[in-house]
Amino acid sequence: MKKALEGIKVVDLTSALSGPFCTMMLADYGADVLKIEPLHGDQCRTWGPIDEKSGESGFYCYVNRNKKGATLNLKSEKGKQMFYDLVKDADILVENYRGGVTKKLGIDYETVKKINPSIIYASCSGFGQYGPLTHRACYDIVAQAMGGMVNLTGFKDTDPVKVGPSVADHVSGIYLTVGVLAALHHRDMTGEGQQVDVSMFDTIFSLLENALVNYTMAGEISQRNGNIDPSIAPFDIFPCKDGFTALGVGNDRLFDTFCHTIGHEELLGDPRYETNDLRCKNYLPELQELIRGWCMEHTKKEIEYIMDEAGIPCGPVLDVKEAIEHPHTQAREMMVHCEHPTAGDLYFQGCVTKMSETPGVVETPSPLLGEHNREIFGLTEEEEAQLKEEGVI
Amino acid sequence: MKKALEGIKVVDLTSALSGPFCTMMLADYGADVLKIEPLHGDQCRTWGPIDEKSGESGFYCYVNRNKKGATLNLKSEKGKQMFYDLVKDADILVENYRGGVTKKLGIDYETVKKINPSIIYASCSGFGQYGPLTHRACYDIVAQAMGGMVNLTGFKDTDPVKVGPSVADHVSGIYLTVGVLAALHHRDMTGEGQQVDVSMFDTIFSLLENALVNYTMAGEISQRNGNIDPSIAPFDIFPCKDGFTALGVGNDRLFDTFCHTIGHEELLGDPRYETNDLRCKNYLPELQELIRGWCMEHTKKEIEYIMDEAGIPCGPVLDVKEAIEHPHTQAREMMVHCEHPTAGDLYFQGCVTKMSETPGVVETPSPLLGEHNREIFGLTEEEEAQLKEEGVI
Repeated sequence: MKKALEGIKVVDLTSALSGPFCTMMLADYGADVLKIEPLHGDQCRTWGPIDEKSGESGFYCYVNRNKKGATLNLKSEKGKQMFYDLVKDADILVENYRGGVTKKLGIDYETVKKINPSIIYASCSGFGQYGPLTHRACYDIVAQAMGGMVNLTGFKDTDPVKVGPSVADHVSGIYLTVGVLAALHHRDMTGEGQQVDVSMFDTIFSLLENALVNYTMAGEISQRNGNIDPSIAPFDIFPCKDGFTALGVGNDRLFDTFCHTIGHEELLGDPRYETNDLRCKNYLPELQELIRGWCMEHTKKEIEYIMDEAGIPCGPVLDVKEAIEHPHTQAREMMVHCEHPTAGDLYFQGCVTKMSETPGVVETPSPLLGEHNREIFGLTEEEEAQLKEEGVI
Repeated sequence: MKKALEGIKVVDLTSALSGPFCTMMLADYGADVLKIEPLHGDQCRTWGPIDEKSGESGFYCYVNRNKKGATLNLKSEKGKQMFYDLVKDADILVENYRGGVTKKLGIDYETVKKINPSIIYASCSGFGQYGPLTHRACYDIVAQAMGGMVNLTGFKDTDPVKVGPSVADHVSGIYLTVGVLAALHHRDMTGEGQQVDVSMFDTIFSLLENALVNYTMAGEISQRNGNIDPSIAPFDIFPCKDGFTALGVGNDRLFDTFCHTIGHEELLGDPRYETNDLRCKNYLPELQELIRGWCMEHTKKEIEYIMDEAGIPCGPVLDVKEAIEHPHTQAREMMVHCEHPTAGDLYFQGCVTKMSETPGVVETPSPLLGEHNREIFGLTEEEEAQLKEEGVI
């Protein structure tokens, strides 16, 4: 099968989640990703869930599928030399050390560029390669907090709350992929390499949407508002018989349909609900309560069916099991299977971006620690044993 | 200044947020993005905040900067013909209609491919171009709910809550950009075009992180857990004197430093807190309360300073004003200025992915409705007037 990034060599120094999510995408679309781990392995090899039999981390497995793996002690002279050899003909290098660390290790862009001027050197970190906070360590929760997202998430009358999954890590990884691929096109056209720099702080900041312009244009400081949309009503998440359901009645025409659908035609004559603007102003508490009452008499499946028939955007709040088992997830191959040499059958997410001619595919499992040392560094069995003994690989 | 996507012609049929966020990135990095709007304009031209003087939407302005704009009635025969002429030499087409609509309009991939076989045709929709739900309308809130994110966000003892900003829209747009650029590289190498398909449902599903493998590997159905990390402690958001602050004490060494920093050395001898594993088990309620107590005696600025000195990852929960005005935001040019012909001085977000040789830049404001009709369609003044009268542009 044809692959979009066939023949592209990526030296992958990333660990944990943000950087590996980028190189996962590059590998899914066919790049040859060589993951270089420290001798004790990527820290996320110890993150749960851990397969009892093999000791493999499920987390490590999914974010590192399709990659080849080697170990390398970058603090040893020999290790550094092997790294310099490796990047000579690489197309892309990806790293997610804290700002400043690559310089200390002697593997920063300035150094690598001298060896390989056309390389694309991509960095992902909490606060980026420059700026007053560049030195700071950062976790996803810190980027979510400082970037402005936590303050906009949660109910008015409860504390602010972070997004459950690590959205700063993931989205930074996706932005980094955008940068790598834009740089690749530029290199295709001109032969010129460059440095790409993404910070988790910038990433979160870029998602604030109209909160940004509400401030710069109207002077308003947006606050969290639970599940209620400030400018459309009814547009909310409602408790129902067996869970919760999201409903978006986006305009007057839909509101008309909606009132008939739930058997509350009397709302249509009510001057408080005549326009979307009025519905926003008068949504609380009565209109919300009335819809809640109707929802509490139905299951989420029933509501979904009824609203789909009526053409009203609606969807149940699914837990992870329900989302995984959903026929749409299956039809779009968003769950894939992979056979791992020690952990056996693994099931995890597929590729989001569907490409008709060069689809992303999961072909090989994540590497065992140092599995491809000989292949990646071109070593004989004896050389491998010798380097291991010396603490280089 | 060099630009990564210089000379790339993009026909942009998108509206609202997800698709326009993709073409915004393409335009920021230098592509020639021709935004084609229906005669009444992109729906988001009416979304707040609205500039009082000019009537321009702040939302429309930021997500459509750097683009040229034309109007076109795709339901008229002449309009369709002008569209076919326009795509003849385009490199990329981006659209975010609901699944099935492009076919009805006669502007789907199969049709466009006949006119321009090497085009990259990129689609973003709620549920994608195939699968049982492909026909359904979708809002961000529905994708967040069905994709599994809402169920994982919020506190244990309150209702599930959506992510404040429209994360499904934004991230789908970024994923679509990845697909467009991967396809562009493939076309650079082979001359072959293709279709790219992203769904908001898949996008959200792909961010569920270890919740996915917790289910497939360990059979656990992850539930929302507020701001507490299930596998690291202390790792939480704490109320303080003047707001909230995020703190991540990621390992034993940091916990040692942390106890000294907050003047609670007695915790170090406590067998309940000896290892991260034990701290996770025994975090609630006592250890959390003790840290809350310490935080309540300090402001978020004080805590940030103290923790930064100690090297402990930490950050205040910033509101949008604080995030905008943060020196780091300024240093990384994450707020940019643009002069708009009717709305005047606009300030909105900059480019996340920093590229050393071909940086993203904001050079021109979003187009007025139909501003570039003559340029984009190559019309004389008379032809333009005539087509307007006919209801074509």
